[in-house]
Formats: sequence, C-alpha cells, structure tokens
Amino acid sequence: MKKSSDFDCNNLLSSMELISEHIHGVAVELEVENIKKMLANILEANCIFVMGAGRSGLVAKAFAMRLMHLGLRVYVVGESTTPAVRNTDVVVAISGSGETRSIADLGKIAKDIGSTLITVTSNRESTLGKLSDTVALISGRTKEDAGGYLERHMRGEYSHLTPLGTSFEITALVFLDAIIAELISITGASEADLKSRHTTLE
Amino acid sequence: MKKSSDFDCNNLLSSMELISEHIHGVAVELEVENIKKMLANILEANCIFVMGAGRSGLVAKAFAMRLMHLGLRVYVVGESTTPAVRNTDVVVAISGSGETRSIADLGKIAKDIGSTLITVTSNRESTLGKLSDTVALISGRTKEDAGGYLERHMRGEYSHLTPLGTSFEITALVFLDAIIAELISITGASEADLKSRHTTLE
Amino acid sequence: MKKSSDFDCNNLLSSMELISEHIHGVAVELEVENIKKMLANILEANCIFVMGAGRSGLVAKAFAMRLMHLGLRVYVVGESTTPAVRNTDVVVAISGSGETRSIADLGKIAKDIGSTLITVTSNRESTLGKLSDTVALISGRTKEDAGGYLERHMRGEYSHLTPLGTSFEITALVFLDAIIAELISITGASEADLKSRHTTLE
Amino acid sequence: MKKSSDFDCNNLLSSMELISEHIHGVAVELEVENIKKMLANILEANCIFVMGAGRSGLVAKAFAMRLMHLGLRVYVVGESTTPAVRNTDVVVAISGSGETRSIADLGKIAKDIGSTLITVTSNRESTLGKLSDTVALISGRTKEDAGGYLERHMRGEYSHLTPLGTSFEITALVFLDAIIAELISITGASEADLKSRHTTLE
Repeated sequence: MKKSSDFDCNNLLSSMELISEHIHGVAVELEVENIKKMLANILEANCIFVMGAGRSGLVAKAFAMRLMHLGLRVYVVGESTTPAVRNTDVVVAISGSGETRSIADLGKIAKDIGSTLITVTSNRESTLGKLSDTVALISGRTKEDAGGYLERHMRGEYSHLTPLGTSFEITALVFLDAIIAELISITGASEADLKSRHTTLE
Repeated sequence: MKKSSDFDCNNLLSSMELISEHIHGVAVELEVENIKKMLANILEANCIFVMGAGRSGLVAKAFAMRLMHLGLRVYVVGESTTPAVRNTDVVVAISGSGETRSIADLGKIAKDIGSTLITVTSNRESTLGKLSDTVALISGRTKEDAGGYLERHMRGEYSHLTPLGTSFEITALVFLDAIIAELISITGASEADLKSRHTTLE
Repeated sequence: MKKSSDFDCNNLLSSMELISEHIHGVAVELEVENIKKMLANILEANCIFVMGAGRSGLVAKAFAMRLMHLGLRVYVVGESTTPAVRNTDVVVAISGSGETRSIADLGKIAKDIGSTLITVTSNRESTLGKLSDTVALISGRTKEDAGGYLERHMRGEYSHLTPLGTSFEITALVFLDAIIAELISITGASEADLKSRHTTLE
Repeated sequence: MKKSSDFDCNNLLSSMELISEHIHGVAVELEVENIKKMLANILEANCIFVMGAGRSGLVAKAFAMRLMHLGLRVYVVGESTTPAVRNTDVVVAISGSGETRSIADLGKIAKDIGSTLITVTSNRESTLGKLSDTVALISGRTKEDAGGYLERHMRGEYSHLTPLGTSFEITALVFLDAIIAELISITGASEADLKSRHTTLE
C-alpha cells in the first residue's frame, strides 16, 4: 500500500473526467423517440412504481423522490407502504445488465398483471429489455468517441476508475434527473412547487 | 401541459450537458490537500460510518457499498446492524447545505464521542463544515467558467434543469466514486477483489 | 460459554411466557378513552405519518403496511416517497422512553406545522408524551399482577429475558395490530379487501 | 362506518388476548431439539445473514439488531453493506408460508453456495422448509387448545382479529427475541454488554 504522502489523486481526477465525458457521450446517443414514449408512459400512469437492486435500487429511490416532488403518485418496490400494482400503472426497472434475477422476476410479474414496463438498461437484448414496453438505453459507446477513449472504457480498460456498474449507475441517475427536468418543462412546475412537497421531517 | 407530440427533450439534453460540465468544473476545483487528508482518515479508521438525509443519504449508501467491496468495515447510520461509534472510527456526513438538522445533530454526537468527522458539502462555513475535522468541498463555481454558464447556474438560473439539491447530490456521488478509484489505486485492489465481496443474494 | 449439549432452552421458554403475560397485562390496563381518541384521529386524518427509531421504527413500518392494506393514505418518515406533512395530517410516534432525540425533534416539528401528534410510549411524562395530542400508554405494571411477577419485570429483574426495549417493542406491535383489528371492525373491511392491496412485487 | 361514539374497542382487546394465548400455545409446542440445533448453527457461524419479505423482513431486521448487540457478525440481506455469503455462514429465512418467491430463490442460492439455511416458518413441507438444514416451526395449533379457540383461529375464524400473516409475524418476533434470551444465557452476556453496542447515532 502507498504511503499517505504518495497519494497523488490522479485516479480520482481521471475518474471524474471519465464520468463527465461518459455523460456527454450518453446524452448525444439517446434514442429520443423512446424517451418521448417513456415520458408519455409516466404522465399517463395512474401510479408509478420504481425498482432496482443494489446501487441501481438507490438510483430508483432518488428518481422516486423527485417524481413525488412533482406531485405524481409514486412508490418504491420493497418500501413499507407500497401497494399492489394494477394494470393502469407503470413500473420502471433499473438494471445495467438487464439480467438482475430478482428485478427480472418482478418485471415478469408486472407484465403478467398488465402494467406497462419501462427498463433503463445498457442491454436492450437482455431479459428485462425484451420484456419491456419501452427501453431507455444508456449506451456506453458513442459516435463521437474519436480517440477511442470511451471504446476502451467499454472494453474494461478503465475498470479501476469506474469499477463494476459505476458508469451505468451514475449515468442512469443523471438521465433520470434529466427526465425530471423535462417533466418540469412539460408540466410547468416551478422549483417552489417541488420544494413545497419536500419532506419536512428530516 | 404540453401534448406528447410536443415533447422536444431539449431540457433533458441540456440538463445532462449541464451536469457533465458541472462535474468537470468541480474536479478542477477540488482542494487536493483536503482530499488526501480524507483518504488518510478513511484508511486509518477502525470502522467507517456514513450518513446523509434524503437523496444525500442514498449517495452515502452507494459510497458505503463500494467501501464494503474494498474490504473496509463500513456501516450506514440508520441501518439495522450498525453498532455504536467509537473514538477510533471515522464518520462521513453528506450534506449540500451542511445544515441538515438531523445530520448536524449526529455530527455533534460523533465529535463528542471523539471520532473523526468528514463532511462532503458545498458550504464550508456551515454547522457541519465547522464541526468537521476534514471538509471535502464540492464547489459549484469554477475558474474555467469563462462564459459565466456555471456562475449563472449558481445563481439558480438553471434551477429548472437541476432542481433543489440535484447538482450537489450527483456531483457528490461522482466524487465519492472517484475516492473509490483512488482507494483502488492506493490499496492495489482489483475489480475481481471487489466483485468477490459483492452480494450474492439479490 | 455453555456447551451445545447443555442448552436447555429454559430462558427461551421463560421469555416467551413472560411476553405472553405482559401482553395480557397491558391489554387489561389500556386507557380506552385515549384509544378511542387515537382511532378517531386516524380515521379523520388526511394522511397518516408514522415514525420511530431502531426497533420502534420497525414497529412503525409494520403498522404502516397494515394501514395501507386498509386503504388509508400512510407514509413512513424517512422512506423515499414520503411528502411534506400538513396540518390536516396525523403523525404517530413510537418511543418507549418518549425521549428518543431524533423522534422528539420531529414530533416538535410536526406540532409546529399544526398536525396532530399521537405517541405510543411507556412514559406519559416524557418529552414526546407532553408534546402529544393523544398518548397511547403501553404500561408494564398491572393491577392483576398478584404474584408480583410483572412488578419484578418492571424493576429489571427479567432484563436477561427481555433486554433493552424488547417488552415495549413487542407489546407496541401487538397493540398496533389490535388497532388494525378495531379499524377493520369500524370500517367493515374484509380480509380480502386487505389482501387486494398487499404488494404483488415481492 | 360506525360513529366515533360507538367504538367499543372489543375487537382490539380480543386481538391482544388472542395473540397472548397464541404465543403461549406456540411456546409449549416448540420442537426443542430443532431449536438447540438452530442455537448451535448461530453460535458456530462465521457470519449470520437474515432475510424476509414484507413484515417478516421487519422481524428479520429486529432479530439482526439484537444479534449485533450480542457482538455477533450479522447482516440483513438487501441492506447497503451486506457482503457476499460464504459456505461458513448461516442464513436465517423468515417466511410464514415458506413459499415467498424472492426468499425461496435466495434460500436456494444460499444452499448452492454451501451455507447453512435455517427457516422460521409455519409450514415445514414448504419450498423453504424442504431446502433448510434446520426448521424452527412456529405452529398455530396446540395440544392445550381444549376449547378449540386456537383451532378456530387456524381455520381463519379470527382473521378479522389477526389478518393475513399477523399471528405468524408477531409470534416469530417473540420467538426470535426468546432465542436472544437463550443466547444471553449461553454466552453470559449482560444487558450492559448489549447496551454498549447499541447505536449512539439516532
């Protein structure tokens, strides 16, 4: 292990720059028609349910908080007061691989009930991807990757900078917060509207 | 409310670009000496406790998962099996304003016990900032903000793109994942090491 | 430490019998007028918020699940989609001592907002007890304690059988599930009604 | 719906008495040899993992807190810092029916890894019951049920007093707290030992 005096923070700074570029790369590659469909699904839903395992589950919760701030009826799968899903509801699954066992099982149940399934994933051809009515693809590779930086990223050369699902999880959070920005624009909500619903007990 | 055919996703794309630039801006402004101190605090701790309220609490949990993957003894304040804090432990608080009541109260208790307090915040002069042994400042303004884009952001002109604490929360997550990247470099851990500790029950 | 062959399970069985008697003792001592007031508060509320720390927080969540099954609008303080409390809402606090710092602070905020505060506690004269509109007292001592069994319990002679807050936590859960039984009777709900709202995603 | 002046609290009191009797009935019917095996499993484990869905999951968390207070290494499946299960670990599943899909799936994974599986259930012949190394049976019917009170309970005649899984969940909690009482006796722990590990940040 290095000594404290040797910490140079080079990996730290490279990791932040890599994520910054990755977010830009994902933004320019978004499939806008699918995103519009996802927005329409959410606005037409009776209730919205969100789910994910591990860090993707935390991203799901962060998204749910903002949907609640917007005044929508939203629940996190697994929290205490989450009711039964109905066929007029929308379920949003978050899974980088699209193969997380428990989430794929729940996605299947949601479809059997007749609800609309949206999956945020890096893998359109996954179990969850194929089950879904709408796929929001968070791709890693981009046309603009001239230097091959992001391509090398996808091959895992930077796995020490963004280990395991890190890239997907952060980018999914940024994308879902951008969905909130678009919903603010569509509904005409103000920041004061959001703030008025923010928990007062914390 | 706009009609579905009118969704143009302009706010969505602007929000992602703004966050991408914001992460870059924060990275170049990091106070590296404080970050080195934070890294040393974490590596010397007996146990690490993380805490935050609302979405900052979700960021704390995401950080805790990766510290566990690295093999460190880490607990989330408020989870079921979190034991008493001792004076050989480090407590990491996450709070944009540095004034979140419950977290500031817990920070005070942690200091009274004699543990080391690190706060990730946008506000060095806040209650939590002043209490802390080490402050990791996630600033919003940057020297490189030539066009005044980020300065306008700080004045709230883009609050519809990144409402409430969105900018801080995402950037804190990216920063803490970059801390993980640096810890991987310092400890020599491989991605396989991390994966071997990843939950098998999900 | 005893050897495995020496486990006699005597403490295990005594602990279960002690709890069984304790629940009976608490039931005969309940202050029925206060309970009726609590039932009326809950039925008249716009939304119900429940809160507690540690194991009392788990009891709060178990109660919230059943209130949701009954079709009431209920939230757990600290969960992701819990909105702001309003003055037409009821907040139910669970705290054996009535002095849990974070819960007492939140109780104060709830009262300042103008909402109705109910506390389930063993200590009417506590900070939370005094703040509350309605106190549901879960007493330990009973008139019927002829043999002095429960009195010795209260003096801590059986602390090895029901350590720390165990007696209060279990009895609070049993009491709150009995509140559900009374609400079923009042509202005429059937078990099928409850089951229809039970989560389908687990 | 009844008027507030008509609330008689009869169902409330009957529900508490029914639970009190039920706990006694379960205690006298416990299979002591299996319980001794469960105690030995827990004391020999490297780490203990607990899991359950819904209210059974809350019971699992309450048990985990006390195991932590006893100084054992314990994790709740699904919480942030829960690591991978190893073959030297014990997994405790809580499921009344023994058929909860997600928990049964995880039980299967735990067995495939080679860890020891204990299930607390009302149904020995269930999927989880058959998978398990040790079954702690929380039965509803008892030999002492002379008046047929508990037998009628089992036939669902009292489902309005203890709807859905209420009886099992409460009795499982009481049983697991009694396991703690037995572990206190076996290990010689004092209440002060437990208190010293109780979270200081709440």
